[in-house]
Amino acid sequence: MIGSKRVVFSLSMLLLVFLAGVNPWPAGADETDTLLTQAKRVFGPLPSAIPSQRNPITPEKVALGKILYYETRISVDGTVSCARCHPMGLYAADGLRKSIGNNGKLNPRNAPTILNAAGEISAHWIGNRLDVEDQAKQAIMGPPSFGMPSYEAAERKLREIKGYPPLFQKAFPEEKEPVTADNFAKAVGAFERTLVTPSRFDAFLKGAKTALTEPEKRGLQTFMQTGCAGCHSSPYLSGQMYQKFGILEPYGKYTKSADIDEGRYTVTKNETDKYVFKVPILRNVEKTAPYFHDGSVDHLYDAIWIMGKVQLGKELTKAQVDDILAFLRTLTGNIPENALQIPLLPPSE
Amino acid sequence: MIGSKRVVFSLSMLLLVFLAGVNPWPAGADETDTLLTQAKRVFGPLPSAIPSQRNPITPEKVALGKILYYETRISVDGTVSCARCHPMGLYAADGLRKSIGNNGKLNPRNAPTILNAAGEISAHWIGNRLDVEDQAKQAIMGPPSFGMPSYEAAERKLREIKGYPPLFQKAFPEEKEPVTADNFAKAVGAFERTLVTPSRFDAFLKGAKTALTEPEKRGLQTFMQTGCAGCHSSPYLSGQMYQKFGILEPYGKYTKSADIDEGRYTVTKNETDKYVFKVPILRNVEKTAPYFHDGSVDHLYDAIWIMGKVQLGKELTKAQVDDILAFLRTLTGNIPENALQIPLLPPSE
Repeated sequence: MIGSKRVVFSLSMLLLVFLAGVNPWPAGADETDTLLTQAKRVFGPLPSAIPSQRNPITPEKVALGKILYYETRISVDGTVSCARCHPMGLYAADGLRKSIGNNGKLNPRNAPTILNAAGEISAHWIGNRLDVEDQAKQAIMGPPSFGMPSYEAAERKLREIKGYPPLFQKAFPEEKEPVTADNFAKAVGAFERTLVTPSRFDAFLKGAKTALTEPEKRGLQTFMQTGCAGCHSSPYLSGQMYQKFGILEPYGKYTKSADIDEGRYTVTKNETDKYVFKVPILRNVEKTAPYFHDGSVDHLYDAIWIMGKVQLGKELTKAQVDDILAFLRTLTGNIPENALQIPLLPPSE
Repeated sequence: MIGSKRVVFSLSMLLLVFLAGVNPWPAGADETDTLLTQAKRVFGPLPSAIPSQRNPITPEKVALGKILYYETRISVDGTVSCARCHPMGLYAADGLRKSIGNNGKLNPRNAPTILNAAGEISAHWIGNRLDVEDQAKQAIMGPPSFGMPSYEAAERKLREIKGYPPLFQKAFPEEKEPVTADNFAKAVGAFERTLVTPSRFDAFLKGAKTALTEPEKRGLQTFMQTGCAGCHSSPYLSGQMYQKFGILEPYGKYTKSADIDEGRYTVTKNETDKYVFKVPILRNVEKTAPYFHDGSVDHLYDAIWIMGKVQLGKELTKAQVDDILAFLRTLTGNIPENALQIPLLPPSE
């Protein structure tokens, strides 16, 4: 009886292998080689930093940017800094469904981690910020973030703090009046471009075949096989494209969303962009609950299952979700030491 | 002409020395010895940590307390942690006149630095918190700080974060249910008891006579001679007593106070406690503008002058204020390395 069940199981697995064109048992050395080859094609290891032609990374910019990342005094109520919604101790996310900015104002969406975010095609869930520099700059006047009435007002505040002009001068040595909102953005951006968090998955991608455990390899396999990697590819596991949330069913059917967000449609006004969001990066995803653009799902397990359902039309089994979860945990990386050291800010007077 | 002026000047200085009983020129070796002897009597160097019989410092408590110091998830809107009003990068004060807590709520007074604050006789400007532990605990339910409806609600939030129970167990190994608001307070308190910031002044007090420059020594001399040290004594330069703000004139005459605070009277209802506040510690004072219980004065220079006027009835000259300012800057110390490293918080799920 047990024997015949086994035969049926093996035959179905072989059929699956045939249909999928990949091996679902990456246990042996050969299977791991195959998995590694496939994974290298789909993902690739993280770079050591994320460069930008428009904003070359220099140590002086990074040093200033790290200080400015903690600067609350250029927000309208003096309480908001980049670190408010992206605290390093919580993997540069804030644990809230939707972030709360100056004067208790609610942001429209969940704060994504800033770790590795410089590698994305744009910033914000709906891609309405060009890059991390643009995000940093616009945050200054963003009504629910820093809420400043003008860039000039922010620049004035920075200039009033005597310690800043020399730091800006060092970071932007060719400029006569370097204390500007644009340079605030460039400095913060340069710092953020260093926030790359290599993990065990990168070790695996670089050829350390034992860097992942068997369940994690199975999870990686499932992640690619089921279709997750269709969108969540690249070294960042996406942030490289936009996609409708709820291709097969409305996402609100499964999430605890308070309202339905029209997503990128609010930017482009194209009907095809309704409910479209930037595919989020999955680096450090286990550390950055709650999930989705509205933070409407508390547990990664549920988020994985919902994605299978509404994006791929698949009812993932508990074993499949568990394996994917095990794989996703291998994406938890090391935050650069420099970013875990608190900079001393220039005093107010 | 110049000669005779010099003679008159020297004679008046000698008279001053005679009247004050101390030497106003701490330039020579003997004068520095005298100054050092006096300073040792009045102040004394900082301890390496600030122990408590009720809450012995252990490495496990300190480690947990440092994590909890950054924990926003036990505040009612998920944005407030100890670090919100006491960020290390700003020397554990927040640069605001009055701190802003959950949902944009204004606190009644300026956030004093938490550095060295464990050495004070009580916590808060009006001494309505017993010690740093009591302050940490009451902050949880403080309407304008964490704003939680009950300690139980905060404990529940902490228990829901799976990473916390084992950390509390390690820190409080004898307790069956260690995740409590009291232990939150003890852990945070233990961390804060390590926040001691020795400076050049301590080197001087320990006998390094050249640790202070001549203007700084002059400032120290003036600080003692003018009467500042009458209240601002001890290794912390006070935090050891309560005193009326505005002994000789109402403080509001010189500060930019929006309203007049009745101070400790609101705690004791004793008429004699009207306008009485805890004498603030002066360690790192140059880094923690704005000044006074209501943050009503932006510059330390002005704060020094006002103190001379309303507390001592003296119109300090520019030279005197400059010297005192130079001395106060020697109180800027080194924040312990451990406190400048951001801890990783346990994730939400």
